[in-house]
Amino acid sequence: LIRREVTRVVTPGSIVEDEFLSETNNYMAVVSEEKGRYCTVFCDVSTGEVLVHESSDEQETLDLLKNYSISQIVCSEHLKSSLKERFPGVYTESISEWYFSDLEEVEKAYNLKDIHHFELSPLALKILAALIKYVKYTMITEDLNLKPPLLISQRDYMILDSATVENLSLIPGDRGKNLFDVLNNTETPMGARLLKKWILHPLVDRKQIEERLEAVERLVNDRVSLEEMRNFLSNMRDVERIVSRVEYNRSVPRDLVALRETLEIIPKLNEILSNFGVFNKLAFPEELVDLLRRAIEDDPLGSPGEGKVIKRGFSSELDEYRDLLEHAEERLKKFEEKERERTGIQKLRVGYNQVFGYYIEVTKANLDKIPDDYERKQTLVNSERFITPELKEFETKIMAAKERIEEMEKELFKNVCEEVKKHKEILLKISEDLAKMDVLSTLAYDAILYNYTKPVFSEDRLEIKGGRHPVVERFTQNFVENDIYMDNEKRFVVITGPNMSGKSTFIRQVGLISLMAQIGSFVPAQKAILPVFDRIFTRMGARDDLAGGRSTFLVEMNEMALILLKSTEKSLVLLDEVGRGTSTQDGVSIAWAISEELIKRGCKVLFATHFTELTELEKHFPQVQNKTILVKEEGKNVIFTHKVVDGVADRSYGIEVAKIAGIPDRVINRAYEILERNFKNNTKKNGKSNRFSQQIPLFPV
Amino acid sequence: LIRREVTRVVTPGSIVEDEFLSETNNYMAVVSEEKGRYCTVFCDVSTGEVLVHESSDEQETLDLLKNYSISQIVCSEHLKSSLKERFPGVYTESISEWYFSDLEEVEKAYNLKDIHHFELSPLALKILAALIKYVKYTMITEDLNLKPPLLISQRDYMILDSATVENLSLIPGDRGKNLFDVLNNTETPMGARLLKKWILHPLVDRKQIEERLEAVERLVNDRVSLEEMRNFLSNMRDVERIVSRVEYNRSVPRDLVALRETLEIIPKLNEILSNFGVFNKLAFPEELVDLLRRAIEDDPLGSPGEGKVIKRGFSSELDEYRDLLEHAEERLKKFEEKERERTGIQKLRVGYNQVFGYYIEVTKANLDKIPDDYERKQTLVNSERFITPELKEFETKIMAAKERIEEMEKELFKNVCEEVKKHKEILLKISEDLAKMDVLSTLAYDAILYNYTKPVFSEDRLEIKGGRHPVVERFTQNFVENDIYMDNEKRFVVITGPNMSGKSTFIRQVGLISLMAQIGSFVPAQKAILPVFDRIFTRMGARDDLAGGRSTFLVEMNEMALILLKSTEKSLVLLDEVGRGTSTQDGVSIAWAISEELIKRGCKVLFATHFTELTELEKHFPQVQNKTILVKEEGKNVIFTHKVVDGVADRSYGIEVAKIAGIPDRVINRAYEILERNFKNNTKKNGKSNRFSQQIPLFPV
Repeated sequence: LIRREVTRVVTPGSIVEDEFLSETNNYMAVVSEEKGRYCTVFCDVSTGEVLVHESSDEQETLDLLKNYSISQIVCSEHLKSSLKERFPGVYTESISEWYFSDLEEVEKAYNLKDIHHFELSPLALKILAALIKYVKYTMITEDLNLKPPLLISQRDYMILDSATVENLSLIPGDRGKNLFDVLNNTETPMGARLLKKWILHPLVDRKQIEERLEAVERLVNDRVSLEEMRNFLSNMRDVERIVSRVEYNRSVPRDLVALRETLEIIPKLNEILSNFGVFNKLAFPEELVDLLRRAIEDDPLGSPGEGKVIKRGFSSELDEYRDLLEHAEERLKKFEEKERERTGIQKLRVGYNQVFGYYIEVTKANLDKIPDDYERKQTLVNSERFITPELKEFETKIMAAKERIEEMEKELFKNVCEEVKKHKEILLKISEDLAKMDVLSTLAYDAILYNYTKPVFSEDRLEIKGGRHPVVERFTQNFVENDIYMDNEKRFVVITGPNMSGKSTFIRQVGLISLMAQIGSFVPAQKAILPVFDRIFTRMGARDDLAGGRSTFLVEMNEMALILLKSTEKSLVLLDEVGRGTSTQDGVSIAWAISEELIKRGCKVLFATHFTELTELEKHFPQVQNKTILVKEEGKNVIFTHKVVDGVADRSYGIEVAKIAGIPDRVINRAYEILERNFKNNTKKNGKSNRFSQQIPLFPV
Repeated sequence: LIRREVTRVVTPGSIVEDEFLSETNNYMAVVSEEKGRYCTVFCDVSTGEVLVHESSDEQETLDLLKNYSISQIVCSEHLKSSLKERFPGVYTESISEWYFSDLEEVEKAYNLKDIHHFELSPLALKILAALIKYVKYTMITEDLNLKPPLLISQRDYMILDSATVENLSLIPGDRGKNLFDVLNNTETPMGARLLKKWILHPLVDRKQIEERLEAVERLVNDRVSLEEMRNFLSNMRDVERIVSRVEYNRSVPRDLVALRETLEIIPKLNEILSNFGVFNKLAFPEELVDLLRRAIEDDPLGSPGEGKVIKRGFSSELDEYRDLLEHAEERLKKFEEKERERTGIQKLRVGYNQVFGYYIEVTKANLDKIPDDYERKQTLVNSERFITPELKEFETKIMAAKERIEEMEKELFKNVCEEVKKHKEILLKISEDLAKMDVLSTLAYDAILYNYTKPVFSEDRLEIKGGRHPVVERFTQNFVENDIYMDNEKRFVVITGPNMSGKSTFIRQVGLISLMAQIGSFVPAQKAILPVFDRIFTRMGARDDLAGGRSTFLVEMNEMALILLKSTEKSLVLLDEVGRGTSTQDGVSIAWAISEELIKRGCKVLFATHFTELTELEKHFPQVQNKTILVKEEGKNVIFTHKVVDGVADRSYGIEVAKIAGIPDRVINRAYEILERNFKNNTKKNGKSNRFSQQIPLFPV
């Protein structure tokens, strides 16, 4: 009896309703490959954002897919099985070739005269066409709300591999604590999304970086205005997603109220902006605000059509019907009372049901009292229902009024939405500006809150004084600051030191400080002079991939090979143990050879290792400096100071750590015994530093 | 105008609708702690399953929470922050003390005379009470569908720590390929859920294990019946969840059809069961099947109330109204034709709208042709709507029929559901039996498909001939089989061998074969004689936890300390590299001391290592055997045979692996040079095996 139509196909990537979404971006990725070129189009349907990435490097594509924590993959058929395997938790769908064929889709969707204005490759255009077709299909609409595609390009941004994103704990993942969570004091959802994007895509252009830092500095310098500004921002809602919902005709009345409330803040916000001299004033669509103010109830109830959405005074015709309805309902009440009196039936009641309309209900016990003009309408178990001409008249009036109200209010609401759609571009610009404002002011807020410093850039010097790890310092009392100095002459640091002394934290902290600087953030240090790195590489931890046929050591070497392939003299390379997954002899030899290669390459390297043999590099290469972590022994107590100093570690304190970890005392004592009788003798016999360095041939220059 | 009531609070753990659930269990965990005792109640609301676990060991509790991949945690307030931190992706809610106080809830929910019949601890009872209150609150119902609580106890099952579940890749997770996916050829959702449970909780009682193996063997021996049986099972639906939805009044008509179809298979299935002499016949609720068959349409449409759910013939009264409705609708059509003829208005049409009911619509152009008996009802822009006494009569009849159909069909559907509820216990027993049948027959199917062997148990002998890794062999061509022999005299195996040669795969395979045997599965080997292990421990890989303040080595030692604390002479311990996260000297000393301890302990140990120093253990302890992986060098080529043989590896081939991994040739060549000039000389100078063993003191017995 009711025909149901499919109005929407729900897939994880095509959700726009707020209640199913977190504040973060919800990306779907459309992926294809042609002749070894990989191209991915990321789309967040809930915000309309479209990002394009293209590369001949499969791994780069996979890294990006991982970093963006996509909720859905749509791909060419020949890629499906391998993508499904790599992203087992992600909903993956393949689409046939014809999806990619219709480039007119792109022109239509963007209302373009010439598709080439986008300056996309033919492959990227095809994928964009497929995306548009797919979204149209799932949303069952012709009106798409997609922003123009933005290119993610290696020229403008540092592309981070997923190992580095994970090793430096940049964004929320399995590990829990991460840079994004520390920095994310944004006040708006748009801001939070943009901050994450900035963290994943540090800039590589010094001018752009300095512009951001400049802006942050000005905000830091006017704390009062900064606070005011953030206060205004905190009252702003997710304009980007509201616009998207309106566009897809899925907005609810509250969306329009939220939109108005957000827009109304703009004039006040604009006043403050001039204090900084950083931001342009936000556009203010006065007419639209006025319309929203006049049209929509401040606190709308229910859906449009139920009469509680459009404000009184907006449409005199609608008001008239509402008056009529209220009046009729009032009179209906009176009619009920009158009938009770007339018939003497106290339990008589006037009711309504969808099928029969209005009726007078009388219980069977009272049936003898009903007047002649009652016309039987329906018989129930214990009562009968009647109608009278007067009631029929009420019914007709009320029903007519209700129907008109429903029609009119729906119509009026739709008209207001259409007005919003007409302002789409300006609203999206506002949202974009707000997001940027929010992130910059959050970075300023973080700088004050966490006591960060503005970094300065230089050609090749990396000098950090009083540096801290931005994440670890948040969860540690008395975090120990550390310094580092590197330049073209001294560009390779070998760090030895006992377990638990903080080697890993230190090298990661140098990476994080550099990365933060390149997103435009102040940094956790007293002073920081940094080069602009083209890329940050990390090789840390150990894991195997048995079913994929890769041993721990192979995984480690795979990652190292990527670094040797891609790093340049402008890169920062962080190595935390290399060559541990094999015999000591092989491991040391490889680590040494890799070090030589990287020294030649000219990149900046921090290499934390337990191979004391590597400290001998310093003797052969002037570019190398040895660092260690200072340990104080006071009687039987060992104190790890976490302080990085020049030198070489003479002990690793592994057994002490094992004790802390809970290995039983008898095992610990036995380990000391073994250490004493074997290695100590050995060392003494051969002379402390005689074992390795003398035999290393000089670097063949 | 429409009052909305909250009928349900949706949380991730309280979903029962199929469209939001995968086939796997959806557990919520209620956790509390009192005086150091941790107690957890797991509940899958969609199946009604309730599992109770109690332990003084916090880690055991955390492991269990992780292994069960819970979707929601409900806990006492004082546990919330720490649980939230450990399970960042899981929805966590704390509840106040009074939730735990009302033990009568338990009695009521289970209709118990005496709560002590459950034999649960006071703490477990409190948590059960809290669970019941919480589910009642979210489902907004008094009728709970919870099965009696089952205790997960260390006495009956092997409790696996989460590191072991991960290291052995037992169930789907980040890694992709795993034992569950290989074995899971179950035919029913209940079976799939039970298989996962069996994998996570291997048995420790030899008699129980042998019962399962016996059953599997009988199934293997009658392939024809096995196939028939699995064929029947494949047509059976998720009875457990259907019952749960019926209980919560959330069932749809198709659930009842699915239930009937499933039950109808039982008699046929019962015939086959006698062939094996393993299973008892399934109960067959004949009356219920008969009722379902008579009451519900084979292919019901829409919801109850729309007239397409209850089968014709079930209720003569309902059929009468349906006839009436059909008849009236037919006559309405005729009426429309008649009126067109009578008025000469071709465009005249009879329509219906919810507010005004039936009407005759005539366009304005034709208004002059309408007869006198047309009464105006509503005016639209281009047309007018009328009613006639005859149409009014139709309306009354149709409306009355529709209303009665709606009421009656809803009522009848509800009655049928009530009948199903009355059969709840028998249905759940059927579901349980089907699940067990499914898992056992799947294990038999796997045994045939993958060529597994029935394991035999012995007191202390572990003898595997032609063993394979059940997961890796599925993704590898020409997997190489391997043997191992251990007993009380020879219980400690040190495995050295080059990278990529298969050490890790080998020791995991021994663990997996033992585990499979203890769940009652045949094993991937030509012959397997095994002890019944009380627990399987693993220490593999390396990861750090910086924000938690734990270095790689500390994590490693923490895991090792747990093993030293908990392992017994009945345990199997698998170590893949211990002592790598520190200096070689410290690492070797600790590894040696740990080995001594484990040898004393008497457990069976397989220790894969790159420390060749550990092969010297064999000289000091008769319990130790050295194994290595055979490598053939043919000219310049190195062939990894993956064959485990007696002996010690003389080289690790790390540099060869680095080459395979893509490290550039010049770096590789340099690494060979360094290896050659330093270590080879060194070795020669000191004499090959002279470096370590001579100095190790004899074991002090």
